[in-house]
Amino acid sequence: MSKDPMLERMAGDRSSIEGKMDEIMPDASERPATLHEAMRYASLEGGKRFRGALCLQAHRMFGEPHPGDSLSAAAAIEFLHAYTLIHDDLPALDDDDTRRGRPSCHVRFDEATALLAGDALQALSFETLSACSGANPEDVTLSVWMLASAAGSRLLVGGQAEDIEAEGREPEPGIVDYIHLRKTAELISVSLRIGAAIASAGMEEIELIGEAGREAGLAFQIVDDLLDLEGTEEKVGKGLRKDIKKGKITWPSSYGVESSRETAARLIEGAVEKARTLGDDGYLEFLFRLVVDRTS
Amino acid sequence: MSKDPMLERMAGDRSSIEGKMDEIMPDASERPATLHEAMRYASLEGGKRFRGALCLQAHRMFGEPHPGDSLSAAAAIEFLHAYTLIHDDLPALDDDDTRRGRPSCHVRFDEATALLAGDALQALSFETLSACSGANPEDVTLSVWMLASAAGSRLLVGGQAEDIEAEGREPEPGIVDYIHLRKTAELISVSLRIGAAIASAGMEEIELIGEAGREAGLAFQIVDDLLDLEGTEEKVGKGLRKDIKKGKITWPSSYGVESSRETAARLIEGAVEKARTLGDDGYLEFLFRLVVDRTS
Repeated sequence: MSKDPMLERMAGDRSSIEGKMDEIMPDASERPATLHEAMRYASLEGGKRFRGALCLQAHRMFGEPHPGDSLSAAAAIEFLHAYTLIHDDLPALDDDDTRRGRPSCHVRFDEATALLAGDALQALSFETLSACSGANPEDVTLSVWMLASAAGSRLLVGGQAEDIEAEGREPEPGIVDYIHLRKTAELISVSLRIGAAIASAGMEEIELIGEAGREAGLAFQIVDDLLDLEGTEEKVGKGLRKDIKKGKITWPSSYGVESSRETAARLIEGAVEKARTLGDDGYLEFLFRLVVDRTS
Repeated sequence: MSKDPMLERMAGDRSSIEGKMDEIMPDASERPATLHEAMRYASLEGGKRFRGALCLQAHRMFGEPHPGDSLSAAAAIEFLHAYTLIHDDLPALDDDDTRRGRPSCHVRFDEATALLAGDALQALSFETLSACSGANPEDVTLSVWMLASAAGSRLLVGGQAEDIEAEGREPEPGIVDYIHLRKTAELISVSLRIGAAIASAGMEEIELIGEAGREAGLAFQIVDDLLDLEGTEEKVGKGLRKDIKKGKITWPSSYGVESSRETAARLIEGAVEKARTLGDDGYLEFLFRLVVDRTS
């Protein structure tokens, strides 16, 4: 496929996922209204829906189409991602005032509301995933288990905890690998694994597409570090050079800029190779390549 | 049954549930060590395991014994409860320095660690519940869905949000009902519903035991309000008269002390009646009656 149909498909996926999220999410007028307004503000407005699109494509690659199910799963993943961004931005963690070019949730509302909106979005994620009623219950429980593990103290939250703890420390090979693999790569990996699991793929296929996701996810975070260092604030949509200001250990600060670019490119090639092995029609490859080609 | 065997059974349940929680939870030495230490500190040390015991008893009432499954479900519920306590105590919410007679999690560690420990405990709750592999997958997905709904913005987190929002406002009939039913009663209700669901109870039985839990749970929070007003700090194990200091709307401030006592007693009778209808051997009744008899 050429690039334009791919962009169209991505726009279509994004729009379907956001439609599903909007449908699932309580109205902003529903009590408690401020909480629901904050949840919608932080999860429905903006975002590329990259993780959701990965889930949809993995589902297409392995199963007969159950569009409702994979859309619910994609929405669940995006709710979980949104919760992590709200909490990461809080003063106690990264203390970021902007997100996607707008005030972050605790700035637009307040800390209590942002904390609770994040908590509720994590719950909504599992509520949504467990309600994928068109899929086999075994596939759904496996998906819930995979998402919960990925979101837990050994992976996503563990990476975030080490990221905070490492602030101000000297870069040391190994630390940034630990953080990036957990903080970022795992959720991207599990997005693909859940899409495959909901489509009743076998465990070997689930593992292989998950490995591709881990490579693409690590590349994603390396590119994020590079953008923070070299991007323009307008394009990236959030404060830049935050990493240096906060004394974050990043991939470029640990391994150098040139080596970071090479590693990201090499990881994407590994991910693409696995996508091809698994019968990708080119869209997963396109999404993977976007990771290194993006400017925001 | 007389009271002593009941107390023994409760002690046995508490010990089994804590053993299961300890087994599931990563070691305090596992990386990131501070995060795991905080998760263990806030969830393993102390606590009556009231919700977990309700889950175990509901499971005994409806199904053949699968002890492993109901214990995992009970542990999952206690992890979720522990997360809500950590986050409730944070400065942005109730700003409580003590919990169960000890420094609360953010005081013993720091705010970032407490926030992340709560986030990870919520994920661990769903990870644990989805891994109840001896139960029917349909029962597990239903349980995950019920727990996630109960924990979400329309119920538990919604109650917490209104509780914070209502601080300093004049008590007004209806507000405290909304808050208590969501903030407290729903998790107690869903503990029973999950025990029943994992035992493959029918939807009518699940609904009825859930209704009993809602009554007992509302009574639980009313008694909590009374203890805050009238208890001694030593016995209750947390700072007292916090409600008045923070301008919280409570049941006694809305309806008076005497009426609060009567309502709690009436609710417990309703819950006990339902427990009897559902074939309780007296233990659920004992647990329900403890709610109004407790001094902490």
